[in-house]
Amino acid sequence: MILLDVGNTRAHLSVDGVVEHLPVDEAIARYHARHVHYINVNPHHADALSAIASWHDLDGDLHLPGDYPTMGVDRRAVCLAHAEGIFIDAGSAITVDKVIKGRYQGGFILPGLAAYRRMYTAISPVLDVPLEPVTLDALPTTTQDGVNFGTMAPIIAIINTIRDNLPLYITGGDGQTIARYFDDATHDETLVFQGMQNALKRKNP
Amino acid sequence: MILLDVGNTRAHLSVDGVVEHLPVDEAIARYHARHVHYINVNPHHADALSAIASWHDLDGDLHLPGDYPTMGVDRRAVCLAHAEGIFIDAGSAITVDKVIKGRYQGGFILPGLAAYRRMYTAISPVLDVPLEPVTLDALPTTTQDGVNFGTMAPIIAIINTIRDNLPLYITGGDGQTIARYFDDATHDETLVFQGMQNALKRKNP
Repeated sequence: MILLDVGNTRAHLSVDGVVEHLPVDEAIARYHARHVHYINVNPHHADALSAIASWHDLDGDLHLPGDYPTMGVDRRAVCLAHAEGIFIDAGSAITVDKVIKGRYQGGFILPGLAAYRRMYTAISPVLDVPLEPVTLDALPTTTQDGVNFGTMAPIIAIINTIRDNLPLYITGGDGQTIARYFDDATHDETLVFQGMQNALKRKNP
Repeated sequence: MILLDVGNTRAHLSVDGVVEHLPVDEAIARYHARHVHYINVNPHHADALSAIASWHDLDGDLHLPGDYPTMGVDRRAVCLAHAEGIFIDAGSAITVDKVIKGRYQGGFILPGLAAYRRMYTAISPVLDVPLEPVTLDALPTTTQDGVNFGTMAPIIAIINTIRDNLPLYITGGDGQTIARYFDDATHDETLVFQGMQNALKRKNP
Protein backbone atom coordinates (compact mmCIF):
# COMPACT_ATOMS: atom_id res chain seq x y z
CA MET A 1 0.00 0.00 0.00
CA ILE A 2 1.08 3.56 -0.70
CA LEU A 3 0.18 6.50 1.54
CA LEU A 4 0.86 9.96 0.13
CA ASP A 5 0.91 13.29 1.96
CA VAL A 6 1.09 16.22 -0.49
CA GLY A 7 2.45 19.31 1.25
CA ASN A 8 2.95 22.87 0.07
CA THR A 9 6.31 22.10 -1.50
CA ARG A 10 6.83 18.33 -1.66
CA ALA A 11 5.17 14.95 -1.55
CA HIS A 12 5.84 12.60 1.34
CA LEU A 13 5.17 8.92 0.72
CA SER A 14 5.05 5.71 2.65
CA VAL A 15 5.63 3.03 0.02
CA ASP A 16 5.04 -0.40 1.53
CA GLY A 17 6.32 1.05 4.80
CA VAL A 18 9.36 2.91 3.41
CA VAL A 19 9.28 6.73 3.63
CA GLU A 20 10.17 8.80 0.55
CA HIS A 21 10.16 12.54 -0.15
CA LEU A 22 9.66 13.55 -3.79
CA PRO A 23 8.52 16.45 -5.95
CA VAL A 24 4.79 15.98 -6.53
CA ASP A 25 5.17 15.49 -10.30
CA GLU A 26 7.69 12.75 -9.72
CA ALA A 27 5.44 11.00 -7.20
CA ILE A 28 2.67 11.00 -9.81
CA ALA A 29 4.97 9.77 -12.60
CA ARG A 30 6.36 6.96 -10.46
CA TYR A 31 3.21 5.66 -8.76
CA HIS A 32 0.22 6.59 -10.95
CA ALA A 33 -0.45 2.90 -11.68
CA ARG A 34 -0.37 1.87 -8.01
CA HIS A 35 -3.18 1.99 -5.46
CA VAL A 36 -2.56 5.21 -3.47
CA HIS A 37 -4.38 6.80 -0.54
CA TYR A 38 -3.52 10.47 -0.39
CA ILE A 39 -4.15 13.71 1.43
CA ASN A 40 -3.34 17.08 -0.13
CA VAL A 41 -3.05 20.62 1.27
CA ASN A 42 -1.96 22.20 -2.02
CA PRO A 43 -4.90 23.37 -4.17
CA HIS A 44 -2.67 23.58 -7.27
CA HIS A 45 -2.33 19.80 -7.32
CA ALA A 46 -5.96 18.93 -6.53
CA ASP A 47 -7.12 18.30 -10.11
CA ALA A 48 -4.06 16.30 -11.14
CA LEU A 49 -4.39 14.05 -8.09
CA SER A 50 -8.12 13.43 -8.35
CA ALA A 51 -7.76 12.57 -12.06
CA ILE A 52 -5.77 9.43 -11.29
CA ALA A 53 -8.20 6.51 -11.26
CA SER A 54 -6.35 4.31 -8.76
CA TRP A 55 -5.71 7.15 -6.26
CA HIS A 56 -8.10 7.87 -3.42
CA ASP A 57 -8.44 11.15 -1.50
CA LEU A 58 -8.63 10.27 2.23
CA ASP A 59 -9.75 13.77 3.32
CA GLY A 60 -13.36 12.74 3.99
CA ASP A 61 -12.26 9.71 5.99
CA LEU A 62 -10.13 11.56 8.53
CA HIS A 63 -12.73 12.04 11.26
CA LEU A 64 -11.35 13.89 14.26
CA PRO A 65 -14.11 14.61 16.79
CA GLY A 66 -13.94 18.20 18.02
CA ASP A 67 -12.02 19.54 15.02
CA TYR A 68 -13.01 22.74 13.18
CA PRO A 69 -14.19 23.08 9.58
CA THR A 70 -11.08 24.70 8.07
CA MET A 71 -8.56 22.57 9.98
CA GLY A 72 -5.88 21.33 7.56
CA VAL A 73 -6.17 17.68 6.54
CA ASP A 74 -2.52 17.05 7.43
CA ARG A 75 -3.11 18.36 10.97
CA ARG A 76 -6.12 16.05 11.32
CA ALA A 77 -4.02 13.13 10.11
CA VAL A 78 -1.28 13.81 12.67
CA CYS A 79 -3.88 14.04 15.45
CA LEU A 80 -5.25 10.62 14.48
CA ALA A 81 -1.88 8.87 14.93
CA HIS A 82 -2.49 8.20 18.64
CA ALA A 83 -5.54 8.31 20.91
CA GLU A 84 -4.13 11.20 22.91
CA GLY A 85 -1.20 13.51 23.17
CA ILE A 86 0.31 16.80 22.12
CA PHE A 87 1.00 16.54 18.37
CA ILE A 88 3.61 18.81 16.82
CA ASP A 89 4.28 19.07 13.09
CA ALA A 90 7.34 21.26 12.53
CA GLY A 91 7.52 22.26 8.88
CA SER A 92 7.19 25.62 7.12
CA ALA A 93 4.76 26.35 9.96
CA ILE A 94 4.75 24.56 13.32
CA THR A 95 1.36 23.26 14.37
CA VAL A 96 0.74 22.23 17.97
CA ASP A 97 -2.45 20.29 18.68
CA LYS A 98 -3.92 18.60 21.72
CA VAL A 99 -6.03 15.45 21.69
CA ILE A 100 -7.53 13.75 24.74
CA LYS A 101 -9.25 10.36 24.43
CA GLY A 102 -9.59 10.80 20.67
CA ARG A 103 -11.18 14.23 20.93
CA TYR A 104 -9.52 17.36 19.54
CA GLN A 105 -9.05 20.03 22.23
CA GLY A 106 -7.62 22.83 20.11
CA GLY A 107 -4.22 23.96 18.95
CA PHE A 108 -2.22 26.75 17.44
CA ILE A 109 0.17 27.68 14.67
CA LEU A 110 3.70 28.99 15.04
CA PRO A 111 6.01 30.14 12.26
CA GLY A 112 8.47 27.43 11.19
CA LEU A 113 12.09 27.59 12.33
CA ALA A 114 13.25 28.70 8.85
CA ALA A 115 10.72 31.55 8.98
CA TYR A 116 12.21 32.69 12.31
CA ARG A 117 15.66 32.83 10.71
CA ARG A 118 14.38 34.91 7.80
CA MET A 119 12.51 37.16 10.19
CA TYR A 120 15.51 37.94 12.41
CA THR A 121 17.69 38.61 9.35
CA ALA A 122 15.10 41.00 7.93
CA ILE A 123 14.94 42.97 11.21
CA SER A 124 18.70 43.57 11.42
CA PRO A 125 21.91 42.08 9.97
CA VAL A 126 23.13 41.90 13.59
CA LEU A 127 20.45 39.25 14.23
CA ASP A 128 21.53 37.08 11.27
CA VAL A 129 22.98 34.22 13.31
CA PRO A 130 22.90 30.46 12.62
CA LEU A 131 20.30 28.34 14.40
CA GLU A 132 22.25 26.37 16.97
CA PRO A 133 21.30 24.41 20.08
CA VAL A 134 21.05 26.69 23.10
CA THR A 135 20.63 25.95 26.77
CA LEU A 136 17.27 27.03 28.17
CA ASP A 137 18.47 26.74 31.77
CA ALA A 138 20.18 30.14 31.88
CA LEU A 139 19.41 33.49 30.28
CA PRO A 140 21.70 34.30 27.34
CA THR A 141 24.36 37.00 27.48
CA THR A 142 25.35 37.10 23.81
CA THR A 143 23.42 38.17 20.71
CA GLN A 144 23.74 34.73 19.09
CA ASP A 145 22.41 32.93 22.16
CA GLY A 146 19.80 35.66 22.60
CA VAL A 147 18.42 34.99 19.11
CA ASN A 148 18.55 31.20 19.45
CA PHE A 149 16.95 31.34 22.90
CA GLY A 150 14.37 33.79 21.49
CA THR A 151 13.51 31.28 18.77
CA MET A 152 13.37 28.07 20.82
CA ALA A 153 12.52 29.02 24.42
CA PRO A 154 9.06 30.54 23.73
CA ILE A 155 8.10 27.48 21.65
CA ILE A 156 9.21 25.07 24.37
CA ALA A 157 7.61 27.20 27.11
CA ILE A 158 4.16 27.26 25.49
CA ILE A 159 4.29 23.52 24.75
CA ASN A 160 5.11 22.86 28.41
CA THR A 161 2.35 25.25 29.49
CA ILE A 162 -0.39 23.38 27.62
CA ARG A 163 1.04 19.88 27.98
CA ASP A 164 -0.89 18.52 31.01
CA ASN A 165 1.40 15.45 31.24
CA LEU A 166 0.22 14.17 27.86
CA PRO A 167 2.59 12.20 25.62
CA LEU A 168 4.44 14.45 23.17
CA TYR A 169 4.66 13.35 19.51
CA ILE A 170 6.78 15.37 17.09
CA THR A 171 7.08 15.08 13.32
CA GLY A 172 8.11 17.26 10.36
CA GLY A 173 11.41 18.44 8.91
CA ASP A 174 12.40 20.34 12.07
CA GLY A 175 10.91 17.75 14.41
CA GLN A 176 14.24 16.47 15.68
CA THR A 177 15.48 20.01 16.42
CA ILE A 178 12.47 20.60 18.66
CA ALA A 179 12.39 17.10 20.19
CA ARG A 180 15.93 17.67 21.49
CA TYR A 181 14.54 20.13 24.07
CA PHE A 182 12.37 17.50 25.77
CA ASP A 183 13.46 14.48 27.81
CA ASP A 184 10.46 12.43 26.82
CA ALA A 185 9.31 13.46 23.34
CA THR A 186 8.68 10.84 20.66
CA HIS A 187 10.12 12.00 17.35
CA ASP A 188 8.43 10.06 14.54
CA GLU A 189 8.44 11.04 10.88
CA THR A 190 5.53 8.70 10.17
CA LEU A 191 2.83 10.38 12.30
CA VAL A 192 0.83 11.57 9.28
CA PHE A 193 0.93 8.10 7.75
CA GLN A 194 -0.11 6.45 11.02
CA GLY A 195 -3.10 8.79 11.20
CA MET A 196 -4.05 7.94 7.62
CA GLN A 197 -3.63 4.24 8.36
CA ASN A 198 -5.83 4.50 11.46
CA ALA A 199 -8.53 6.25 9.42
CA LEU A 200 -8.38 3.45 6.84
CA LYS A 201 -8.66 0.78 9.54
CA ARG A 202 -11.73 2.49 10.97
CA LYS A 203 -13.28 2.68 7.51
CA ASN A 204 -12.49 -0.95 6.63
CA PRO A 205 -12.18 -2.74 9.95
CA MET B 1 16.81 69.13 28.84
CA ILE B 2 16.36 66.98 25.75
CA LEU B 3 16.91 63.22 25.71
CA LEU B 4 17.05 61.58 22.28
CA ASP B 5 16.85 57.87 21.41
CA VAL B 6 17.72 57.26 17.75
CA GLY B 7 16.27 53.94 16.61
CA ASN B 8 16.53 52.06 13.34
CA THR B 9 13.69 54.00 11.74
CA ARG B 10 12.82 57.02 13.89
CA ALA B 11 13.99 59.35 16.64
CA HIS B 12 12.27 59.31 20.00
CA LEU B 13 12.68 62.44 22.10
CA SER B 14 11.87 63.62 25.58
CA VAL B 15 11.79 67.42 25.26
CA ASP B 16 11.53 68.98 28.70
CA GLY B 17 9.54 65.88 29.73
CA VAL B 18 7.26 65.69 26.67
CA VAL B 19 7.70 62.66 24.40
CA GLU B 20 7.95 63.17 20.62
CA HIS B 21 8.58 60.79 17.73
CA LEU B 22 10.22 62.31 14.64
CA PRO B 23 12.25 61.39 11.59
CA VAL B 24 15.92 61.72 12.55
CA ASP B 25 16.57 64.57 10.09
CA GLU B 26 13.71 66.54 11.53
CA ALA B 27 14.92 66.00 15.08
CA ILE B 28 18.30 67.39 14.04
CA ALA B 29 16.77 70.36 12.18
CA ARG B 30 14.53 71.24 15.10
CA TYR B 31 16.88 70.82 18.04
CA HIS B 32 20.47 71.21 16.78
CA ALA B 33 20.92 74.40 18.82
CA ARG B 34 19.67 72.81 22.08
CA HIS B 35 21.63 70.79 24.60
CA VAL B 36 20.81 67.15 23.79
CA HIS B 37 21.89 63.85 25.36
CA TYR B 38 21.43 61.06 22.85
CA ILE B 39 21.87 57.37 22.24
CA ASN B 40 21.91 55.90 18.73
CA VAL B 41 21.64 52.35 17.36
CA ASN B 42 21.72 53.38 13.70
CA PRO B 43 25.27 53.57 12.28
CA HIS B 44 24.05 55.64 9.30
CA HIS B 45 23.33 58.59 11.59
CA ALA B 46 26.46 58.35 13.76
CA ASP B 47 28.53 61.03 11.98
CA ALA B 48 25.70 63.53 11.64
CA LEU B 49 24.87 63.23 15.34
CA SER B 50 28.43 63.47 16.62
CA ALA B 51 29.05 66.54 14.44
CA ILE B 52 26.58 68.65 16.44
CA ALA B 53 28.56 70.58 19.04
CA SER B 54 25.84 70.82 21.69
CA TRP B 55 24.83 67.14 21.45
CA HIS B 56 26.38 64.52 23.70
CA ASP B 57 26.50 60.75 23.06
CA LEU B 58 25.54 58.99 26.31
CA ASP B 59 26.67 55.51 25.16
CA GLY B 60 29.80 55.49 27.33
CA ASP B 61 27.85 56.61 30.40
CA LEU B 62 25.28 53.79 30.39
CA HIS B 63 27.03 51.40 32.75
CA LEU B 64 25.05 48.21 33.30
CA PRO B 65 27.02 45.74 35.43
CA GLY B 66 26.90 42.24 33.94
CA ASP B 67 26.09 43.37 30.40
CA TYR B 68 27.90 42.01 27.34
CA PRO B 69 30.11 43.94 24.89
CA THR B 70 27.75 44.02 21.88
CA MET B 71 24.58 44.68 23.87
CA GLY B 72 22.63 47.48 22.19
CA VAL B 73 22.79 50.86 23.89
CA ASP B 74 18.98 51.16 23.88
CA ARG B 75 18.66 47.83 25.71
CA ARG B 76 21.16 49.03 28.30
CA ALA B 77 19.19 52.25 28.72
CA VAL B 78 15.92 50.38 29.31
CA CYS B 79 17.62 48.12 31.88
CA LEU B 80 18.83 51.19 33.79
CA ALA B 81 15.30 52.60 34.27
CA HIS B 82 14.74 50.66 37.51
CA ALA B 83 16.99 48.78 39.93
CA GLU B 84 15.39 45.45 39.09
CA GLY B 85 12.79 43.85 36.92
CA ILE B 86 12.01 42.20 33.63
CA PHE B 87 12.40 44.87 30.94
CA ILE B 88 10.62 44.44 27.63
CA ASP B 89 11.09 46.71 24.62
CA ALA B 90 8.58 45.74 21.94
CA GLY B 91 9.58 47.35 18.65
CA SER B 92 10.78 45.89 15.34
CA ALA B 93 12.33 43.26 17.59
CA ILE B 94 11.18 42.45 21.12
CA THR B 95 13.97 42.39 23.68
CA VAL B 96 13.40 40.79 27.07
CA ASP B 97 16.01 41.47 29.74
CA LYS B 98 16.35 40.63 33.41
CA VAL B 99 18.02 42.82 36.03
CA ILE B 100 18.37 41.96 39.72
CA LYS B 101 19.72 44.55 42.16
CA GLY B 102 21.18 46.60 39.32
CA ARG B 103 23.01 43.67 37.76
CA TYR B 104 22.16 42.37 34.29
CA GLN B 105 21.23 38.67 34.35
CA GLY B 106 20.80 38.07 30.62
CA GLY B 107 18.03 38.32 28.10
CA PHE B 108 16.86 37.38 24.65
CA ILE B 109 15.49 38.71 21.39
CA LEU B 110 12.15 37.87 19.79
CA PRO B 111 10.88 39.03 16.41
CA GLY B 112 8.57 42.04 16.69
CA LEU B 113 4.82 41.57 16.34
CA ALA B 114 4.85 43.09 12.84
CA ALA B 115 7.51 40.57 11.83
CA TYR B 116 5.27 37.73 13.03
CA ARG B 117 2.45 39.03 10.81
CA ARG B 118 4.73 39.19 7.77
CA MET B 119 6.06 35.75 8.58
CA TYR B 120 2.67 34.04 8.77
CA THR B 121 1.54 35.73 5.56
CA ALA B 122 4.69 34.55 3.76
CA ILE B 123 4.11 30.94 4.87
CA SER B 124 0.54 30.74 3.54
CA PRO B 125 -2.27 33.15 2.54
CA VAL B 126 -4.49 31.10 4.88
CA LEU B 127 -2.42 32.41 7.80
CA ASP B 128 -2.84 36.08 6.77
CA VAL B 129 -5.11 37.09 9.65
CA PRO B 130 -5.23 40.38 11.60
CA LEU B 131 -3.52 40.57 14.97
CA GLU B 132 -6.32 40.62 17.49
CA PRO B 133 -6.53 40.00 21.23
CA VAL B 134 -6.91 36.30 21.98
CA THR B 135 -7.65 34.46 25.20
CA LEU B 136 -4.75 32.39 26.46
CA ASP B 137 -6.97 30.42 28.85
CA ALA B 138 -8.26 27.96 26.26
CA LEU B 139 -6.69 26.36 23.19
CA PRO B 140 -7.94 27.89 19.92
CA THR B 141 -10.21 26.04 17.51
CA THR B 142 -10.08 28.43 14.56
CA THR B 143 -7.24 29.40 12.23
CA GLN B 144 -7.45 33.08 13.21
CA ASP B 145 -7.26 32.33 16.92
CA GLY B 146 -4.61 29.69 16.23
CA VAL B 147 -2.37 32.29 14.59
CA ASN B 148 -3.00 34.96 17.22
CA PHE B 149 -2.45 32.47 20.04
CA GLY B 150 0.68 31.23 18.22
CA THR B 151 2.00 34.80 18.15
CA MET B 152 1.20 35.89 21.71
CA ALA B 153 1.06 32.77 23.90
CA PRO B 154 4.71 31.68 23.43
CA ILE B 155 5.90 35.23 24.19
CA ILE B 156 3.79 35.43 27.35
CA ALA B 157 4.77 31.88 28.39
CA ILE B 158 8.52 32.51 28.20
CA ILE B 159 8.20 35.84 30.03
CA ASN B 160 6.29 34.07 32.82
CA THR B 161 8.87 31.27 32.85
CA ILE B 162 11.81 33.59 33.52
CA ARG B 163 9.97 36.18 35.62
CA ASP B 164 10.78 35.05 39.19
CA ASN B 165 8.20 37.47 40.66
CA LEU B 166 10.14 40.49 39.44
CA PRO B 167 8.32 43.69 38.41
CA LEU B 168 7.53 43.76 34.69
CA TYR B 169 8.25 46.97 32.74
CA ILE B 170 7.16 47.21 29.12
CA THR B 171 7.93 49.88 26.54
CA GLY B 172 8.06 50.25 22.73
CA GLY B 173 5.45 50.64 20.00
CA ASP B 174 3.81 47.28 20.74
CA GLY B 175 4.25 47.59 24.49
CA GLN B 176 0.58 48.08 25.24
CA THR B 177 -0.42 45.05 23.15
CA ILE B 178 1.87 42.85 25.22
CA ALA B 179 1.12 44.50 28.58
CA ARG B 180 -2.56 43.62 28.12
CA TYR B 181 -1.72 39.95 28.75
CA PHE B 182 -0.45 40.63 32.28
CA ASP B 183 -2.39 41.72 35.36
CA ASP B 184 0.53 43.57 36.85
CA ALA B 185 2.73 44.91 34.04
CA THR B 186 3.83 48.55 34.01
CA HIS B 187 3.52 49.97 30.50
CA ASP B 188 5.73 53.04 30.25
CA GLU B 189 6.88 54.66 27.02
CA THR B 190 9.61 56.58 28.86
CA LEU B 191 11.74 53.64 30.07
CA VAL B 192 14.64 54.48 27.75
CA PHE B 193 14.61 58.10 28.86
CA GLN B 194 14.47 57.13 32.53
CA GLY B 195 17.52 54.92 32.02
CA MET B 196 19.37 57.77 30.31
CA GLN B 197 18.34 60.14 33.08
CA ASN B 198 19.56 57.71 35.76
CA ALA B 199 22.92 57.41 33.97
CA LEU B 200 23.21 61.21 33.90
CA LYS B 201 22.39 61.45 37.61
CA ARG B 202 25.08 58.92 38.43
CA LYS B 203 27.60 60.84 36.31
CA ASN B 204 26.69 64.26 37.79
CA PRO B 205 25.22 63.50 41.21
